[in-house]
Order: sequence, then C-alpha cells, then structure tokens
Amino acid sequence: MGDAKRVSVGIVGASGYGGVQLVRLLQDHPNVEIVYLGGDSSAGKPFYTLYPHLSHCIDLMIEPIDIDKIASQCQVVFLSLPNGLACKMAPQLLEKGCKVLDLSADYRFFNLETYKKWYGSEREDKAIASTAVYGLPELYRDRISQAQLIGCPGCYVTASLLALSPLLKQGLIATDSAIIDAKSGTSGGGRQAKTNLLHAEADNAISAYGVAGHHRHTPEIEQICSDLAGHDVKVQFTPHLIPMARGILATVYATLRDPGLVREDLITIYTAFYRNAPWVKVLPGGTYPQTKWACGTNLCYLGVEVDQRTNRVIVMSVIDNLIKGQAGQGVQCLNLMMGWDEMLGLPKLSFYP
Amino acid sequence: MGDAKRVSVGIVGASGYGGVQLVRLLQDHPNVEIVYLGGDSSAGKPFYTLYPHLSHCIDLMIEPIDIDKIASQCQVVFLSLPNGLACKMAPQLLEKGCKVLDLSADYRFFNLETYKKWYGSEREDKAIASTAVYGLPELYRDRISQAQLIGCPGCYVTASLLALSPLLKQGLIATDSAIIDAKSGTSGGGRQAKTNLLHAEADNAISAYGVAGHHRHTPEIEQICSDLAGHDVKVQFTPHLIPMARGILATVYATLRDPGLVREDLITIYTAFYRNAPWVKVLPGGTYPQTKWACGTNLCYLGVEVDQRTNRVIVMSVIDNLIKGQAGQGVQCLNLMMGWDEMLGLPKLSFYP
Amino acid sequence: MGDAKRVSVGIVGASGYGGVQLVRLLQDHPNVEIVYLGGDSSAGKPFYTLYPHLSHCIDLMIEPIDIDKIASQCQVVFLSLPNGLACKMAPQLLEKGCKVLDLSADYRFFNLETYKKWYGSEREDKAIASTAVYGLPELYRDRISQAQLIGCPGCYVTASLLALSPLLKQGLIATDSAIIDAKSGTSGGGRQAKTNLLHAEADNAISAYGVAGHHRHTPEIEQICSDLAGHDVKVQFTPHLIPMARGILATVYATLRDPGLVREDLITIYTAFYRNAPWVKVLPGGTYPQTKWACGTNLCYLGVEVDQRTNRVIVMSVIDNLIKGQAGQGVQCLNLMMGWDEMLGLPKLSFYP
Amino acid sequence: MGDAKRVSVGIVGASGYGGVQLVRLLQDHPNVEIVYLGGDSSAGKPFYTLYPHLSHCIDLMIEPIDIDKIASQCQVVFLSLPNGLACKMAPQLLEKGCKVLDLSADYRFFNLETYKKWYGSEREDKAIASTAVYGLPELYRDRISQAQLIGCPGCYVTASLLALSPLLKQGLIATDSAIIDAKSGTSGGGRQAKTNLLHAEADNAISAYGVAGHHRHTPEIEQICSDLAGHDVKVQFTPHLIPMARGILATVYATLRDPGLVREDLITIYTAFYRNAPWVKVLPGGTYPQTKWACGTNLCYLGVEVDQRTNRVIVMSVIDNLIKGQAGQGVQCLNLMMGWDEMLGLPKLSFYP
Repeated sequence: MGDAKRVSVGIVGASGYGGVQLVRLLQDHPNVEIVYLGGDSSAGKPFYTLYPHLSHCIDLMIEPIDIDKIASQCQVVFLSLPNGLACKMAPQLLEKGCKVLDLSADYRFFNLETYKKWYGSEREDKAIASTAVYGLPELYRDRISQAQLIGCPGCYVTASLLALSPLLKQGLIATDSAIIDAKSGTSGGGRQAKTNLLHAEADNAISAYGVAGHHRHTPEIEQICSDLAGHDVKVQFTPHLIPMARGILATVYATLRDPGLVREDLITIYTAFYRNAPWVKVLPGGTYPQTKWACGTNLCYLGVEVDQRTNRVIVMSVIDNLIKGQAGQGVQCLNLMMGWDEMLGLPKLSFYP
Repeated sequence: MGDAKRVSVGIVGASGYGGVQLVRLLQDHPNVEIVYLGGDSSAGKPFYTLYPHLSHCIDLMIEPIDIDKIASQCQVVFLSLPNGLACKMAPQLLEKGCKVLDLSADYRFFNLETYKKWYGSEREDKAIASTAVYGLPELYRDRISQAQLIGCPGCYVTASLLALSPLLKQGLIATDSAIIDAKSGTSGGGRQAKTNLLHAEADNAISAYGVAGHHRHTPEIEQICSDLAGHDVKVQFTPHLIPMARGILATVYATLRDPGLVREDLITIYTAFYRNAPWVKVLPGGTYPQTKWACGTNLCYLGVEVDQRTNRVIVMSVIDNLIKGQAGQGVQCLNLMMGWDEMLGLPKLSFYP
Repeated sequence: MGDAKRVSVGIVGASGYGGVQLVRLLQDHPNVEIVYLGGDSSAGKPFYTLYPHLSHCIDLMIEPIDIDKIASQCQVVFLSLPNGLACKMAPQLLEKGCKVLDLSADYRFFNLETYKKWYGSEREDKAIASTAVYGLPELYRDRISQAQLIGCPGCYVTASLLALSPLLKQGLIATDSAIIDAKSGTSGGGRQAKTNLLHAEADNAISAYGVAGHHRHTPEIEQICSDLAGHDVKVQFTPHLIPMARGILATVYATLRDPGLVREDLITIYTAFYRNAPWVKVLPGGTYPQTKWACGTNLCYLGVEVDQRTNRVIVMSVIDNLIKGQAGQGVQCLNLMMGWDEMLGLPKLSFYP
Repeated sequence: MGDAKRVSVGIVGASGYGGVQLVRLLQDHPNVEIVYLGGDSSAGKPFYTLYPHLSHCIDLMIEPIDIDKIASQCQVVFLSLPNGLACKMAPQLLEKGCKVLDLSADYRFFNLETYKKWYGSEREDKAIASTAVYGLPELYRDRISQAQLIGCPGCYVTASLLALSPLLKQGLIATDSAIIDAKSGTSGGGRQAKTNLLHAEADNAISAYGVAGHHRHTPEIEQICSDLAGHDVKVQFTPHLIPMARGILATVYATLRDPGLVREDLITIYTAFYRNAPWVKVLPGGTYPQTKWACGTNLCYLGVEVDQRTNRVIVMSVIDNLIKGQAGQGVQCLNLMMGWDEMLGLPKLSFYP
C-alpha cells in the first residue's frame, strides 16, 4: 500500500475532468500517494484507458465503489461525483475515520433548505452536513484546518467570491449592487457528451445561460457574501460559455459607498486582505488579468479598477476553472487539513502561451 | 465603366477587414458595381494578392488615393480608414457630388469637442461634420435616407445601442444604471499585426481592456443614449477580447424604474420598438442569443430577461462585428440613402455551425 | 403548397448539420421551395427549436417520416440520414416519382459487396442501387443530369478526389503512390454528442484516426480512382481531427511517372481538366489554399506543387466540409438534374476572416 | 549571486516564447538559478512587464547584451535569438568558460555550406562550429554529455526525427520514401506580430507552407536522417499551420523494405530503440497520440501503425513545440551536460484537457 510516510488518498469519480486533475495534481504531490480510484461506469478498466497520456505515471484500475474497501485503504477521500451522491457516501466514510473532501454541491450550503430548493432532494445527513466546512481557504482557512469534511466551492463561485470578499467584508459597496458577469471555458461543463458543448457548436461562439438568477450558483454566492457582510446580500450573476477549454474570468461591478475612494485605495485594501493568501495575486494598477496566466496553476489573479465617473469598482478575477476552481482547491484544503504548507504540491507557474 | 443601371461605388481603405467585407458584400449587391479600390500601402497591387480567395470574382487593382479620380468614377464612396483620415477627404468628395459613408469615428460625434478629447485632433471641417448623420438605421432611418454623409457606428456601439435603445427611449431604467459588459472576437482589432492579437496570445484566453471608461466607445454610446433619453446618461462600458474571430455579445444590465415589469412586458416593448427594423430579431422568452447565429449576416439578435429578485433587466445583444458592426451597416445605410429596400443585397442566413 | 413555379423539395433528416445546411442553402435557392422536413427524434417540433437563429426564415415543423406523404408533397427528396436508412426509403420514393439525392454512403458504391464489407449490412435494393449515379459533378456531370437517384460523396472523399482526378485520368502518377493526409474540422463528426468531439477535448488538439486503411472512406476513394485510372488503384488515406468547426484540407502526395514535369505543367493540366467546372479554382503557382477561403461556399481551391528533388507532386485541396463536402454538393447535383445552371443558388464568396 | 550550490544560468533573448519557456522551466529546476536575462529591444525593463503573470516568481531586469558581464555571472548560457546572432556570441562565451546551448539554427549543421545555402550568411566560426553537438538527446546523448556547445533542434525537426530514427537506424524503409506531413500550432511562429499569425487569420483555418522542399527544416532533417542511415537520404517535408496555440503532430509515411513486418514488430523495434529514452513514450497498438497529451511536458508520444495493403509504416509523433521542441529540449541537454538526471526539473504530466 505504498510509501508509509505518505498519506493514502482515494478518488471516487476519477473519470471526469475533476478526477483527472486530482490524479494529475496528487501524482506530483510529495506527501500523498494515490491508492484508490473509484467509478461506476468505468469500473474494471485501467485508468489510463480513459486518459492514455497518463499511462506512463499511473497504473491503477478504476474500481467499483465499495465504502468498506475505500475506508480500509484511504486516509483521505476525494469525492468528485454528480450532485446528490456525496451526501450518501460521506457519512459512512467519516464514521470509518476518513477525512472527506467533496467537490460537488452537497456540502456547500449552511442551510439545507437552500440545497433542497435548488438541487431538489431531501437530505438525511443533516447532522453531518452541519459539520462541513466551506472549502475556500482564503475565507475559512482556520476552520478548514480543523475539519473532517469539506465542501469545496466550484469555479464560478471561487472566482466571484475572491473578487467580492474584500468589498463585502469591509462594507465598501452598496447592498445588492454587485453584478458578476462571468465567462467560463467549456471544460466547466464536464466530460459529458452534451450537444451544446460540442466543438462545432461552442467554437467561435459565446452565449449567456442561466440568466436572471436562474443558476444554482447564485444562492451559493449569496450565502457567502451574506456571511461576509453580516446581512443578507443579493447579487446578479450571469454565466457565459466562451470558446476556450479552460479558465474563468469574472468581471464584477459594484457601487462604492464612499465616492472618494480611488483605484490605489482599493488595491491597498485588496493587497492587505490577501496578504496571507499565497494563491491570490493582486495586480498593480492598470494591469488586467488574462485567463491564460492562471492556466495550469492554482493561482487567482485580481485586477482592480475604479471608475470615478460612475462611482463603481470593477474587479476582474481569473482562475483555472479545473485547478483553483476545482481539484487544486481541494488539494489546497487537504494541505491545510494535514497541517502542511498551503502551497505544497500545487503548480504556480503557467505554460503561457 | 460598367453596368449603366448600377450605382458606381468606390472603397478607400480596401485592404483591411472592413474593406474586404465591403468588397464581398457589394460584389453580391444587385444594384451596385464596385469600380474603385483605394489604398496607400497596397497601391499598385491587384486586390486579390491581399485576399487570394476572391481572385475568381474581382480583378480590380488597389489604386493610389486620388480624390479627383475617385469623384469622377464613383457616385458613392465608402471610407474605411484609420481615424482622422476621413475628415480630410470627405469634404472634397462631397463637394464633387459623391455620397460618402465613413466607417471610422470621424463623423460619429454631434459635438467635435468630444471627438477632440478622445481622438486628439482639432477638426477643420466643422460645417461639413454638422451635416453628418449617425449611421444606425434602427434609430435614425429617416435622416439617413436624406443624408449625403454618414458616420457609421462600429461594432461595440451598435450591439450596445440596439440593446439599450428601447429602455432609454421609453424611460424605463434608472439613470446611469446601465452596465455594458461586451465581448468581442479578435477581428475587431483589424488586420494589423499587434502582439496581443496573435493567435498564440489570444487563443484560449479572455481579458478585459479599456476598463472604467477608458475606452473611446464610452462617450459615443453615451452621446446616443443621451439623445434617446432626452437628458445626460452615463454608462459603464467594459470591452473584452475573447478567442473567436468574429462576433460580439453585449450583455447589458440596468435597473428598472417600475418593479412591476416582467419579462413578457419587456419583450412586447422591444418587439414593438423594432417592428419596422428588419435586421433586429427579438427572441422569445428564455431564448438567449449565441454570436454564431449572426455570423455572416447583418442581423442583430436580442434576448431579454428580467430578474424580479434584483429588479434588473438584462439584455443580450449579438451581431457579426464585421457586418452589422461595420460593413453591412454601411450597406444598409446605402440602401436607405438610395431609396432601396433596406435588406437589399445583405446576407440574412448564417452558416451555423 | 407554395409557389407553383418552384420545385417542391423535402429533406429527411433535417436536424443534423447536413440537414440545417440544406435548409439554409435551399431557403436561398430561387427555384426551390422547401415543403417538408422530416425526422425521427425531433418529429413534432418546429424546426426553429433546433436552430433558433433560423426562426425568422422558416416555420416548418419536423414531421414524422411518412413515405406516402413525402412523395405526395415533394418532387425532390434529400435524404440526410445515418448510413443504412436511405436504402430502405429511396426505392419507394423513386417508385412514386420523386427524384432522390442521398447524402449517406448507401448509394456511393458501384459494387454492393464493398458496401457490405465496410458498412456491414446486406442490401435488398440491388437493382435500384445499380441506377444510382455518384454525385461528384466534376467527374460525372452528364450522368448526374440524367439521374433519378444520386449518392453524394462526403467531405473527405470530395476533397481527395478533386485533388487526384487529373493525375489519375491522365496516368501521370505511379500506381499506388498516392498518399492523402486529410485534416477535417469537427463538424464533420455531426451534431451528435460524442466525448471526443467535445470542445474541451478537441480544442488545442490534433490527432489522426482510422489510420492504415481502417477508415470507410478508403474503399470509396479507391473505387473512383480506379474508375478514372482504368485499373485498380490503392491509396493511403489518413484522416485527422483538427480544432476548427468547418473545413477540410487534403494534402495529397504522389510520385510522377515523368520526372520532367514541372509545376507549371501540372497547373496547366489541372486548369484544363477543370475548365468547365465552375466550383473548382486552380490557384497560381506558389499560392497554397487555406480552408477559411472556402468557408461558407461551394468552392474547392486547389494548390499544385512539384518537388523536383523527390519527383513528387503535392496537391492541396480545400473545401467547406458541410457545403461542397455535403449539402452544397447535393444542391449542385440538383441543379444539374433539373437542367439549371450548376451555380444557381449556391454561395461563392466566403466571409473571410 | 544566489544559492552557491546551484548552477548560475543566463538567458539571452528572454522576451520571446523560447525565452519565457526557459524562464518558466529553469525557475522550477532544483539545480539551477537564473541570474541573467538579456535582450535588445526590451533592455531596461523588468521581465514581468513582458509577462505579467510571472511577476510573483521572477523580478530580474532584462539587461543589455554584454558578453563580459554574461560570462562573469553565468556558468551556462542559453541563446534564444533569431538565426545568425548566436554564431557571433557563442565563440566569445565559450572562450570565457561558459557552456552554451543555442536554440537557433546556427549550430545545427555539420556542414556550414548547407547553413550558408539556406540561411544566407558566411560564417567565421568554423572551428568552433565543428565542436558543436546536435542537441537531440535521444540520438546523441553521449556526445551531449561531453559538449561545451549545443545546437538544439527545433520543434518540427524533433518531432520528425523521433518518428523516423528507428526506421533509418535499422534500415527498415526504402530510401527516399519518407514523407513527413507536419502540423504545428501557431506559437511556433514566435511572439512576433505577423499578419498571418493573427488570431483572426489563423483561427478556424489550416494551410500548408514551405511546400516541396522550400522549407529550411528539410536539409536539417535530411542531415540527421543521412547520419542515421549511413547514406544520403531525401525526405518530403510539408509543414502546416493549424489553429491551436501549442503542439506539433508529425504524421510520417514510409515504405517498408520487408513486406512481412506487422504493427507489433514495429512497436517492438520502437520500444527497444527508445528503452533508455525517458522522454519518449511508444504507445500500444491502435492508440494514436493527441497533441494535447504532451502539452506542458517534455514528452514525445509515438503511435506506430502498419498498412499491409500498401506496405507502409505510418508513425504519428506529438510533442509540445515549445518544450520538447524548444526550451525543454535545451534543459534536457543541460541536465546531460551537467551529469544530472535527464528528467530533472522537467514537467512530465500534462494538464489535459
């Protein structure tokens, strides 16, 4: 069962994009050994039949999902499954002593009524769910360090919250004035064959979807914004699909309460807010981030601008949707849970261009 | 000099993307004959050396720019030149009896002080400039029909104004609440070799630029918005470069004055506003436009949504940046100036996907 | 049932990319009226629910496939279905007096044993199949004019054959020396959700498939090459999937029998061979075609080069895979069958870039 | 000047794509410290002004090129300059005791007459040039280990030679039968603003260039092929530009001397040939490589196929053009020159998709 000094990790739902990123990141992680890969439709196949380019570095089979076996082999389990499955598995894994990091929506909500409203299903793990910590280290670092169960936020929400948090925490913007216009690459849709994600459809095209609060990420963003602000906050969130494989840019607009604030003030505030956050880079004035800068890294780049004509702050936030927006965030949380350096084993240099 | 029944047309600045689109559109136009192509750096070359795929349909040379010669050959002249050149040539061409359609910024401003502030140069053609008509047919159809000189708006401004006009004309939104988050394909940057427009840089990447009112299109959009509203209007305009060759999507947000308005009300208002505008298609509720739908056509598709939680209207506007956003708009204006059907000779079916 | 002077046309299999291209092209065709759209999975829906951007120009419903009804309404029927279905329907449609153009593989083979070997199914329509004409107008123009049933070749085969035909017809190349390295855009895979055609997989990637004669198009290309040469010809055909939505480039290599031939000789030969083929453009020496030149048109551009060091001819052939490689070819055949101008109603100018 | 245990490295020509890849790779290399970045046009600027995403990890200035200063600071110098410049600088750097790795064409030719014919300039460093070793470790590992001066091959040549070497070394193919149809991403053209490399031109398009031996890489490929075969070898090399930022696929065709060889024989031969080459992965039968598998790594993936109908072998070779095809190859050579593990500090896992 591998190197005794390393932590044994299992990944349930290894066949999707979240799964393959986890495999890729954890394979390079010095303190971790991947000992188990689980999946339903792919069970019984070597992992490299799904991703042949990794055949030189990993020869694990995809195994059927068997909680007892997972718990006996793994100290830590990543769940990378469709919504509604983790909440069936996590309680058993926790009971058997595993630490659990879930990449789905199941453990992201403080209030399961909100979960039920947007995800449709009644939950029977309320006690367990109440122990879950929201896996955004830049906001909940201390609690993550103590947690056994993490609900990691996804790509849109991560990019949006890292842009908005300093504003909300310090009460700088008019309530409900925030508009998040977010643009995602197509890998955000997962490795599932959907017509609208075909190359021939998505190439050379952009369109919005889930407009006007009809997207499940709106209540999740609002939950954390409200937590930061100390009162209910509404946001306008509009996701767009754009013709690139990876990356997210969230362009965030909000009205400043204090019309005297200028760009340099905001950059100072952002820099201070993130002074202990090694994965967030606040850019100098006049520099706006490009998604490709973050590609293949766990970094978030923030560009901050103030329009004094309109009294609005505009924040541009870019991440790699599959790393800081998914698998890398999970590994960052793992580092904190294990007491390791938050940056351990995570890529910080992109291969631009 | 060609078919006596056709109007003779010249294009000055034929080598850029605006020029080649004009050639392509006018070559298919039943009432027009292209008799002159002019350019500086390419003078003396056959046009097809710049665009070899058109060698089977056009064999004109690029000629040096000679006002007398142009005026003697052409009834109508399109100017597709960098800003600051048309204002030197248009007065002479008009004096010699040509109709002039300018695709640059030179004749888009009601007030030349605004032009000077943003484009930097003093103008000596103030009397002529005051006769120019703003070439957006959906707003200024009647005046275009009577004009000798047209200043055609560009791609960002066209997409933005077609989204905002019904709201402003009818006083439906809170003053200064409009935010335009616009996403453009890379051909909007022209056929000039700039590092940031290289495929290797722009592919798989998105970034904002000209943020916080630092873009020349902000005053142009505000000029027309103010004209429609009857009072000064400020907008927030943020352009983004996205990895596709053609197309623009403008996602426009604004706060409704009347919280009782629902999506269907807005769709009814938009449909009525554009009932005589054959090139604008208001989509049914819940359908949001994709840029590729408009690609290769002169159409603008509008999707309209209301978020009753936030009391905002969200309008998505897509056009082909080089057709409705540039050359096609010019041809549409020409049709009106000549008393022809507004749709004559312009493509209305895309080659999706 | 529409304009009495127009030919009534039906399209069976209207929901795929072949179908929507046919709709788009025939909608613009002056002598045709689309009166019927048929499909299985989409029956009962308005066509524009599949392609909302066409809602302004077509309001037909997708109807269930009913041979009697089709035959009573349509003079001409296009079949755009998966392989193995047209051969069930065409005999009945022909019997009822329709002309039939099939875009599948069912009527492309002179010998149904070859069809059976590669497509797996026994055929019961041998007599009918023997009357089918291969729908490549540049090679079989006269027979197409007289035909009631056409089996139109697809995109790879069209690009390959237009590159090779002059060489084979005139016996210029060593038998079996031809190598076709073909590169296709992703729309060639159809509007079906397959994982390898997802944008996130196909973007920024190229790979070969069906290598070493394992692709169904090899026997089809060899059939026509052998017909032209007058003896059996083998070719090496390798398709590649490249990250663009539309277009095909076939780069064809062959060894010249006569080492004295130079590029200009070959260009003269090609130009003569295609002198009556309005849709084929042989480029001047040193000009090599780009796929985008043909995009949105029914054109094939050919670049011809000779390497005297190696005594090889290299021909580059580009088409739009969905027009000259599919729907446009069908319309070109229709024009010939009806005695119309071969170019009628087909686009000949691309919207480059 | 940094960590005493690390080797001090300078990069001359740091502003281009080769330069930034070197910076990125060497920054992560455990045994190296970058101490100098040199450039002409960018001298005096901090490196991060050219590549802002690296501002968090490198704060060196771009310095004017001063041989004495470089030699005093650097044990190893990478030259990443336009052709014709390295041959002026390398002799001086070598004389002052530096090891030199050149990424240009200057030191790739065994015979400077060939260089002169294709690159146009007379050379005055013949004695030095004769000591240069061709920097393809899979073929010249031992000599690289001993070298002071390396001429690293570029992307097209690396992909081509790794595909052809086992065939030539073992005399398996008919002389002059090899055809290399190569497809490159657009970053291969460098970070120079050229019209044909604009996103709007290159997107959704493919075309060949330098056809029929008119490309400078043909003599370089033939030089090494002849060295391997022990007699003069001619190849047919055709490069294509395809719409992706990174990666190369070379599809190589050749006629087998022995018609009895089957795919498995060839895979065995390739596997044996590359058994000590950690950066080359020979794929199992029926698996063909995709460029994205190699993206961001120093790997070459080879797929091997035999067509028994035509008696041809077909080899598909993919690399990341900027890593194994440029900067990574240089670092691999450096590892050998310094006696380090050949894989040290080089990425071996891609971030697919």
